[in-house]
Formats: sequence, structure tokens, C-alpha cells
Amino acid sequence: MAEVKLLKTWSSHFALRVVWALKLKGVQFDSIEEDLSNKSPLLLQHNPVYKKIPVLVHNGRAISESLVILEYIDETWKQYPLLPDDPYESARARFWAKFSDDKVFPSIWGVFIKQGKEQEEAFAQVFENFSFLEEELKGKKFFGGEKIGYADLALGWIAERVFELEEIGVKVIEKEKFPLVSAWMQEFLKVPVIKESLPPHEKLVTKMRGIREKYLGAAHPE
Amino acid sequence: MAEVKLLKTWSSHFALRVVWALKLKGVQFDSIEEDLSNKSPLLLQHNPVYKKIPVLVHNGRAISESLVILEYIDETWKQYPLLPDDPYESARARFWAKFSDDKVFPSIWGVFIKQGKEQEEAFAQVFENFSFLEEELKGKKFFGGEKIGYADLALGWIAERVFELEEIGVKVIEKEKFPLVSAWMQEFLKVPVIKESLPPHEKLVTKMRGIREKYLGAAHPE
Repeated sequence: MAEVKLLKTWSSHFALRVVWALKLKGVQFDSIEEDLSNKSPLLLQHNPVYKKIPVLVHNGRAISESLVILEYIDETWKQYPLLPDDPYESARARFWAKFSDDKVFPSIWGVFIKQGKEQEEAFAQVFENFSFLEEELKGKKFFGGEKIGYADLALGWIAERVFELEEIGVKVIEKEKFPLVSAWMQEFLKVPVIKESLPPHEKLVTKMRGIREKYLGAAHPE
Repeated sequence: MAEVKLLKTWSSHFALRVVWALKLKGVQFDSIEEDLSNKSPLLLQHNPVYKKIPVLVHNGRAISESLVILEYIDETWKQYPLLPDDPYESARARFWAKFSDDKVFPSIWGVFIKQGKEQEEAFAQVFENFSFLEEELKGKKFFGGEKIGYADLALGWIAERVFELEEIGVKVIEKEKFPLVSAWMQEFLKVPVIKESLPPHEKLVTKMRGIREKYLGAAHPE
């Protein structure tokens, strides 16, 4: 039987993408929890370039970078395809996955750790990014269509993060202005495989609050 | 017959990846030269998110982001496969392509437009990045093995850029310390499809010199 290990942390949304993909495919795997303040020899050996999680180790061979891992999983285990057969639809999925990391992540991160004028700029970027996502979701329930797919797994962190941040007093977006994205976020979090794999909510909110206070404290040391 | 158009600029190495891929596949296409200081309605219509080239338009449908376009090309035209069949080897190719854009490009750009301590730091990053590439090339002629493939097209800009920058007095690396990368750069630039598609050398060197002077001038306005 194939030996599949996943090096991850409990709170990483990049690792969560991989957990979701493996569960959707029904692939059994062992989770190895990493302490990023004291990285294991296994992590350093398997991802010498970035020294980051997630790393998937399949029959002793390591793959890193979450979106690369998703492609690997999709090519290796054919059940529940993440990418569609049509090359154009696949390209769209890859485009929005990249958009998640290149554009949406920095904008939400900016709203999260900044304040004043810099935060205003980040809010404006979030608004623009969500407008593009809203447009893409026209006529679709998920980015993958009727079922969640590659782009949904890549963008899925947004769904949880937006609700989390609201709890610590950071309203990332006015949800009523993005009805399709809002519906997508709710539907995505309802999918059983997604829901059951989310990190413990209270623990994550506490962690996020701590990170925010650290950044804001550093910005205002008085 | 399929209608393929490529929106590009003559000097963009991101666009060059796509040109190379189409030529390796023997796909006929029309080039549409964009003026980025006055973007065409076609570009703004086809890539509203990034408003950047390259954009591939195939039968009226647009795909942007150069690495996404390479995947599209590889899935659409099967001759001369860019990605290998083996999912692990494909993952490696995707990993090094991403490494090109996430790590190598910023480091070489830093060497190009900075000076003093900042440039020293960029040099150190280039050294580290090239060390990883050197390691990956052990036992191989190209990143793709005996033939150029996806990772070679993604990383290929390095080959030309290093020689160009030397001409304007910026020695990016000590080539003798990276014999495998150096051999790869030379072999890559010898491949007929690559060689015949390079931008006009003198024109590019002149453009690069101008960009560098602009940055260094801005850093030292006195």
C-alpha cells in the first residue's frame, strides 16, 4: 500500500489545501505536525529550498508547494478529479489559484496586520479582488462548477479566514456587496470533507488575535 | 484551422516562454505587439485582472499568466510534450518553474537595479538559488532531461539574462562555480527554436542599460 505522509502545521491554510485534496480523493495519509520554530530534520531534508510546510512524502519522494502538490495528487489518484478535462477550464482554475496567492492573500493579510492609510489601501485591494471573484462565480455554485475543485481548494482559505477575522473585529469585506462570493463561502464550508478538516476554531481565533496584536504592537510601540 | 494569437512585447521573457512553447509544438500563431505605456483595448479586455502580457487567445478565448499558458499549450497540443508523464517528475518541473519566478527572478532583479549592501544581499540570494539549480541538474543535460521541457522554458530567461547583464557590466554569477548551470545555459541557447526566437540582442542590451541607469539614477538623485 502506498505510504503517504503530510508534513503540516495545525493552523496552515496552505497545508489544509492538501488535507482537503487527499480526503476528497479518499487517500489515507499520516499527518506529521511540524514546529516551525524548531523545524524537524525531515522537513529540512525534504524541502531544503523553502524549508516550509506543506510537504507531501509519497513512497519516500517529497513534493512541496501546495499548488504543485494538488496537481501531483490529481495526477496520481484519479478518483474525484480536481482539474477538469477541458484545457481552457483547467487554465481558468489554475489562474484563480494563482490569483489567490498573488493577489488575495497579500490584500487580506494587509487588512489583518495594518491600520490607518495602509489598511485602507489593503481594503481597496480586497474589494477589487473580490469583485473579480464575484464575476467569475456568475452562473456557478463553486469555482469548479457544481462540485468543488482545484480552484475551490486553493481559494478555500478565504472562506474561513473572513469569518475568523470578523470575530476578532476585522471586517474584511461587506458581504452583502458580494452575494455570490458570500454564498460560495458558506456552501464551501458546508461540504463535509471541508468542514470536518477545519482547524479548531477557538484555537485559531486566539492565534490570529495574537498575531494581529504582535504586528499592531510593533507598529505602535508606545 | 485554430486561430491562435499571442499578445506580447518584443522584450518580455515571460512572453518568450510562450513563443518557445508554441514553436516547439509547431503551432502557428500571430504575434500582437503591445505597447505597455498605452495598453490596447484587446489586452484590457482579455486580461482585466493583471492587464499584463503575455495573453494567449485561442479561438477567441483568452488565457493569461505565462506558466498557466504553458500548461494550456501542453494540454491542447500533444506533440512534443513539455511536462513528463510521471506525476513526480511533473511536480519537480512545476516546482522549479515556480522557483524561477518566486526566487530567481527577484534575486537577479536585485543584482540588476541595486547597489552597495542591498546588491550584496541580492548576490548572496542569486548564489544560493544557483546552488539549488546546480544540484537539480546533476546527471541531466536539461531540467527536462535529454530534451528541453516545461522547467527549461520557465527558467530559460536566466540563460540570456546572465549574458546580457555581463555586457552592461553586471556579473550576476561566477560561472565557473556553477559548471552544470553554465553548461545548461549554453546548451539551452543553442537549441534552434530557442535561438531563433531571442529578442534582438543589441536592442535588448540597450533597453536593459537604460532601465538600470533609471533605477540607479533614482537611487542617487544628486
